Amino acid sequence: MYSFKNDYSEGAHSRILNALVETNLEQTDGYGTDQYTERSVNLLKKKIDREEVDIHLLVGGTQVNLTAISAFLRPHQAAIGADTSHINCHETGAIEATGHKVITMRTKDGKLTPNLIQNVVDSHSDEHMVQPKLVYISNSTELGTLYTKAELIDLHDCCKRNKLLLYLDGARLGAALVAEENDLTLADIAKLVDAFYIGGTKNGALFGEALVICNDELKEDFRYFIKQKGGLLAKGRLLGIQFEELFKDDLYFELAKHANKMALMLKGAIVNEGYKFLTESFTNQQFPIFPNNLIEKLSEKYSFNIERVIDSNYTAIRLVTSWATKEEIVLEFIEDLHL
Amino acid sequence: MYSFKNDYSEGAHSRILNALVETNLEQTDGYGTDQYTERSVNLLKKKIDREEVDIHLLVGGTQVNLTAISAFLRPHQAAIGADTSHINCHETGAIEATGHKVITMRTKDGKLTPNLIQNVVDSHSDEHMVQPKLVYISNSTELGTLYTKAELIDLHDCCKRNKLLLYLDGARLGAALVAEENDLTLADIAKLVDAFYIGGTKNGALFGEALVICNDELKEDFRYFIKQKGGLLAKGRLLGIQFEELFKDDLYFELAKHANKMALMLKGAIVNEGYKFLTESFTNQQFPIFPNNLIEKLSEKYSFNIERVIDSNYTAIRLVTSWATKEEIVLEFIEDLHL
Amino acid sequence: MYSFKNDYSEGAHSRILNALVETNLEQTDGYGTDQYTERSVNLLKKKIDREEVDIHLLVGGTQVNLTAISAFLRPHQAAIGADTSHINCHETGAIEATGHKVITMRTKDGKLTPNLIQNVVDSHSDEHMVQPKLVYISNSTELGTLYTKAELIDLHDCCKRNKLLLYLDGARLGAALVAEENDLTLADIAKLVDAFYIGGTKNGALFGEALVICNDELKEDFRYFIKQKGGLLAKGRLLGIQFEELFKDDLYFELAKHANKMALMLKGAIVNEGYKFLTESFTNQQFPIFPNNLIEKLSEKYSFNIERVIDSNYTAIRLVTSWATKEEIVLEFIEDLHL
Amino acid sequence: MYSFKNDYSEGAHSRILNALVETNLEQTDGYGTDQYTERSVNLLKKKIDREEVDIHLLVGGTQVNLTAISAFLRPHQAAIGADTSHINCHETGAIEATGHKVITMRTKDGKLTPNLIQNVVDSHSDEHMVQPKLVYISNSTELGTLYTKAELIDLHDCCKRNKLLLYLDGARLGAALVAEENDLTLADIAKLVDAFYIGGTKNGALFGEALVICNDELKEDFRYFIKQKGGLLAKGRLLGIQFEELFKDDLYFELAKHANKMALMLKGAIVNEGYKFLTESFTNQQFPIFPNNLIEKLSEKYSFNIERVIDSNYTAIRLVTSWATKEEIVLEFIEDLHL
Repeated sequence: MYSFKNDYSEGAHSRILNALVETNLEQTDGYGTDQYTERSVNLLKKKIDREEVDIHLLVGGTQVNLTAISAFLRPHQAAIGADTSHINCHETGAIEATGHKVITMRTKDGKLTPNLIQNVVDSHSDEHMVQPKLVYISNSTELGTLYTKAELIDLHDCCKRNKLLLYLDGARLGAALVAEENDLTLADIAKLVDAFYIGGTKNGALFGEALVICNDELKEDFRYFIKQKGGLLAKGRLLGIQFEELFKDDLYFELAKHANKMALMLKGAIVNEGYKFLTESFTNQQFPIFPNNLIEKLSEKYSFNIERVIDSNYTAIRLVTSWATKEEIVLEFIEDLHL
Repeated sequence: MYSFKNDYSEGAHSRILNALVETNLEQTDGYGTDQYTERSVNLLKKKIDREEVDIHLLVGGTQVNLTAISAFLRPHQAAIGADTSHINCHETGAIEATGHKVITMRTKDGKLTPNLIQNVVDSHSDEHMVQPKLVYISNSTELGTLYTKAELIDLHDCCKRNKLLLYLDGARLGAALVAEENDLTLADIAKLVDAFYIGGTKNGALFGEALVICNDELKEDFRYFIKQKGGLLAKGRLLGIQFEELFKDDLYFELAKHANKMALMLKGAIVNEGYKFLTESFTNQQFPIFPNNLIEKLSEKYSFNIERVIDSNYTAIRLVTSWATKEEIVLEFIEDLHL
Repeated sequence: MYSFKNDYSEGAHSRILNALVETNLEQTDGYGTDQYTERSVNLLKKKIDREEVDIHLLVGGTQVNLTAISAFLRPHQAAIGADTSHINCHETGAIEATGHKVITMRTKDGKLTPNLIQNVVDSHSDEHMVQPKLVYISNSTELGTLYTKAELIDLHDCCKRNKLLLYLDGARLGAALVAEENDLTLADIAKLVDAFYIGGTKNGALFGEALVICNDELKEDFRYFIKQKGGLLAKGRLLGIQFEELFKDDLYFELAKHANKMALMLKGAIVNEGYKFLTESFTNQQFPIFPNNLIEKLSEKYSFNIERVIDSNYTAIRLVTSWATKEEIVLEFIEDLHL
Repeated sequence: MYSFKNDYSEGAHSRILNALVETNLEQTDGYGTDQYTERSVNLLKKKIDREEVDIHLLVGGTQVNLTAISAFLRPHQAAIGADTSHINCHETGAIEATGHKVITMRTKDGKLTPNLIQNVVDSHSDEHMVQPKLVYISNSTELGTLYTKAELIDLHDCCKRNKLLLYLDGARLGAALVAEENDLTLADIAKLVDAFYIGGTKNGALFGEALVICNDELKEDFRYFIKQKGGLLAKGRLLGIQFEELFKDDLYFELAKHANKMALMLKGAIVNEGYKFLTESFTNQQFPIFPNNLIEKLSEKYSFNIERVIDSNYTAIRLVTSWATKEEIVLEFIEDLHL
C-alpha cells in the first residue's frame, strides 16, 4: 500500500537528518536563542530580500496560525477566510479558541478576491458585529490553486484601503513558488503581505514553519505569544538547523519541484484518460474526479483521501505528492488508471 | 418622528415600575438570593409546569447566550445556528470570545431543520474539526417566523439522535407564544429543549431575561458562570420584582398580544396595498418590501431599520411593534402608505 | 433583622426612581445612543473637568472591570493587584477568564505602593513570564481605606516610569471622595489614572457604573468590547437617566456623605467601647474586631458578614452603611454594643 | 564555556537519532496514528503497569500543561500550585490564557502539602470566587526536591476528600524516579494521580512528553484539545520512535541516573567546600549558595543561571546536569571551586 494521502508521510530529507546528527552533541542555548536559529533567520532574510522582517521558527502550522492571528488581532476583531481555508476547516476551532471569529465565504477554487472581502467589510458596520481585520489566504491553497502576482497585489490594495491585515499561510509555499504558472517570489510576498509563513513540514523537514512578520506594528513582544501558546521549542536549534539546511542553497525549492513534477505526471496521465478535476492545480495536490469503481480498484494498492462526493457514480479524490514520492510508483499508478 | 426600530424604545409597563417603586426601600440580600427572585422563579416554574428546572434571571440577551453556551460546551465544541441568528450576526462574536465556533448555514426564513443540522454533524467527522454540540434556535426568529410544535419535536429528536443540546433564544418568546399560528406552550418548550430563555427586555420589562435550564446535566455551578461573565446583578431583586409582575397573572402574554396585534394591523394594510414581504411573519417584526420612494416618504415621519436591499427600486425594511406601540400611530402609518 | 451586609440592600434614591417614572414612555434609541446618556456623559465630563475623556455607562462593577481590563491588555499582559483586590477575590476569575493573569501581593491595608509594583516589574524579565502591564487599585479599597493625592501621584509616576497603565476601581468612589481625610477630586483622578469608574450601584442608583477612559490610546472601539462581553444594555437610557440625576447637582456626594456619617457614628461608638479595627477606615465600610459573644448577640438583630477570624475569642466583622442607612438603627446598634 | 544552564542544551541520545535515521523513509499515517506511536504507547502502559490509561505524545511541557489543564477544568475552575510552580512562573500565563486562574501559595521547597491545599479549598466558599479543582505538582520539583510515596498518598487522599484532580508535571520525572531517596514507581504514580506526564525533552529526547490520563472521566475527546491548541504533530511518528527507544529497555532511566550522578558529584564537592544550598536536592538540579566572587570566577568558564540573591555577598545559582553532562567537566568544575 503506497500512500498519496499527504506530503508528510516520510521523515526528512537525508541532508536535514545528517545536519541534525552532525550537530547533535554541541551545546546551545535554548528556545531559539542559539546560533543555528540566528543563521537560518539571516539566510531567510536574504532569500526574502528584506533585512528588517522578524522571523520566528515554530513547529507546526496550526500553532503558527493560532499564535500569529491571536497576537495580531484585538478581542473584537475577526479573520476573513475561504470556507475551505485550513483555519476554518481543519484546526478544530483553534482561532475561535483564542477568542476570534472566522468569517467565511464560498469560493470556487479556495481563493479570496477583493470583491468577496469588500462584501464582508461592507456588511460589518457597527459594534454589534465583529470587526473584520485580518484576511487569511493560503498559497498554494487547500485546493492546490495559486495566487498570481497581480491577484496578490489586488488583495494587498484591497486590504490597505480597508485597513485590513493580509496574512498568508505558506504550509505549501514551496510547491506554489516552483509551480510553472507561478510569478511570485518570496520577496514579492514579503512586500505584499503583513505576515506569512514558509512551511517546512510538508516540504522535507521533520517539522518546522518559519513565520515572517513584515509589518512593524505586529512585531512587538511576539516571543511572549509563542511561549504562551506552548510553541517555544526548548531545543529550538532543531528548527534552526533544518531551515539552514533547506535554505543555505536551493534544497527547499528542489524538493518542491520534485513534488510538483510527480503531481504533474499524475495530472497529465489522468487528463489523457479523459477524467476531469475538481480544481485546476499546478502543484502537489491533485483532485481528480474518478468513477467509483476505479477508486475502489486503486484503493487496493494506494491510500488517498476522498475529497468530495460528486454524484452517485463519481467522486473527487485527493492525491498528494511530496519531495519523497517515488517516480516508479507514480508510473505504476498511471498504469493502474486503465480500468 | 415615531420609532418602529425596535421593541425596547420605551421604559417598562407601568405595573412594573409601580412594583419597583413600592418595594424600593425594603432591604433584601444581593445577587438574586432575595425573596422576590425566589417568588418569581417559583411562578415561572408553575407556568412552565416543571418544578425541577433551574431558573436564573439575567439582565440581557447577549449576556444570557454567552453565559449559557460557554457553560454548556467543552472547549472543542461548537454551536450550530442559522446565518441570521443573533449569536452569529449581532453579538460581536460573543460566543467566539468565549472560545467556541458558531457553525452557520443559510436558511430561507431563519429556521433550522433536522436536515440542515444532520449535514453539519455528518461533515464534522474527526478531531481536526470542531465537534458540533449545541443547536441554537430563536423563537420567534430574527425574521419574525415561528417554530411549530411538530417542527420543535423534529429538532428535539434530531438532537437526541446526534447527542446535541437544543437551546432556544426566547428574546421574543412572548410574541411567538401568543401568535395565532403558534401551537407551542411554555411547558412544551421546557420538555423539548435543554435550555431556553424567556425574554423580558423586549416585552415590557426595563430589562431582564429568565434562563430556564431543563437538562439536569447543565445545571451544576451555573451561578459561577453568571458571576464570572459579569452578569450577576447586585440588586438582583430588580429582576425578581419584574418577572413576578409579568407572570403573577398574564401580563406578559397581554403585552405580547398587543405588540402582535399592532404588527398584524400593519401587515394587513401593507398586503392590501399589494406589497410583498421578505418573510411571512405573524409576530411583532414585519419585513415589508417597499419601493424606495415610499421608504423615503415614510422616513420623514417614522424611523425604522433597513433590512435588505432587494434591487435598485425595492428595499425590505423592518417594522417592529411592542407592548407600547400606539394604535393611533399605526393607523396614521397605514394612511401614509398611500403614495 | 436589619442588614449591615452591604450598600446595595435597598433599591434607589427616590429622585432616581422618579426620574425613571417621568421619562418612562418616551421613545429613545437603544444601547446608550439616547439623549439621556449623552447628557449624563456631558455632566460627568464637567464634574471631571476634562472634556476629552470617553465615558461609557455599564450595569455592574465586575462587568466594567473585565471589559476594560481585557480591552486594555494584549494577550501576554497581566494586571497587578492587592491580594484583597476585588478582581482577585470576588469576581470568580473574571479577568483570567478573558485570558489574563492577575499578579497579586500582600498588603497591610489593601493599598498598593510603588515599591510593591516595582518588585513585580523587576521580577518579570522575559518572555517566559507574563508582562505586567496594568495596575489595579480601588478607592476606597475593599478594606475601607483611602489613597491620598500624594500616594496616587506616586503610583502614577511609578506607572509612567514602567510603562504601566493605572486603573482605578471606583465601586465606592463616592465614599472615598467625601471622606474627611480625602484630598482627591474627580479631576485629580482623571489626570492621574488611565481609566477609572464611578460607582452608582453602591451609592444610590438601581445599578450603573460610569467608566471614564482618560488615556487616548485606550479609547478606540470600546463599544465593541462592551457589546461582546454582554454589557451593552438595550435600554441604555436607564443608565443615562440615573447618572444625570446623580450628578446634575450633588446628589451623588450627598448620598455618600450620609453613608460615611453613619459609618463614623458606628466607628466612634465602637472606639469608645474600646474595640479595635482590622483597618483604619474613614468610609462606609468598618471592620471592628469584636469578642465572639458580642457578635453572637448582635447577630440576633443585625445581619453582617464575617471578615476574618482573629483568634479563638475575637473576630473581625464587616459593617457597611449606605445612603439608605437609618440613623435610628445606627443608634440602636450602638446601644446594643454594651454587652 | 561549558553550560550548566539546563538539561536540554544538547540534541538527543545517539540511539534516538539512530532510530530516526533508520525509519526515516518509511511511510506512516500522520498525527500520531502510526505504528510507532502505538508501540511506544503500549510499551509505556506496560512500564506503568496499567493497560487502561490513555497516553498522548506531545512535543513540549508547556503545551502539555496548558492542553491538559484546560481540557480537565470547566470555565469557573482553578488550578492550585506552588508559587514556584512552572505553570505560575515560566509559562507566560499559558493557563490563564485558556481562562483559568492559578491559585498559588508559598512553600519552602516547591512542594505542596494537604494543609496548604485544604486552606485554599476552605477559603473558596461560593460563586463569587473561582472553584479550586486541580492540584498541580511537579516531581522532581522546580527546586530539585522530591515527593515521597507517603506524601503523594496524602495528597491523593486530600484531593479525593475535596473532589480535586491531582496532576503531576513530570518534565523531570526521570531524575525523580532514579534518585536514591525516591520510593515511587511509575505504577504508583499512575494509581495516585489523575494525570501526569513523562518528560522526554529534559532526559535525552530531541523533544517529547508523554501525557498519561489515568482518570476515565478526563479521557473523552482529548485529541480534539491537542489539535485545537496546536500540539498535534503532523509527523507524530517522531514522538513514537523516540519514546519507543527510551522505554524499550531502560534507556530512559539510565540517562536520568547519569544526570543525577553528575549532580551529586557536584553536590558532594560543594558540601565539602562548606557551602550551603537553597534546597536539599537529590536530583539533577542543584542550588548552591556561593559567594559572589566565586560566582564571578566560575562564570568565566561555565554558564549557569542565577536563582536568587541571598544577601549582598551571597547568591544562589542553579546548576543543571543531564544525560549528556561530561564527567571530566564536572571534575574540572569541582577543581575550580577552590578560590
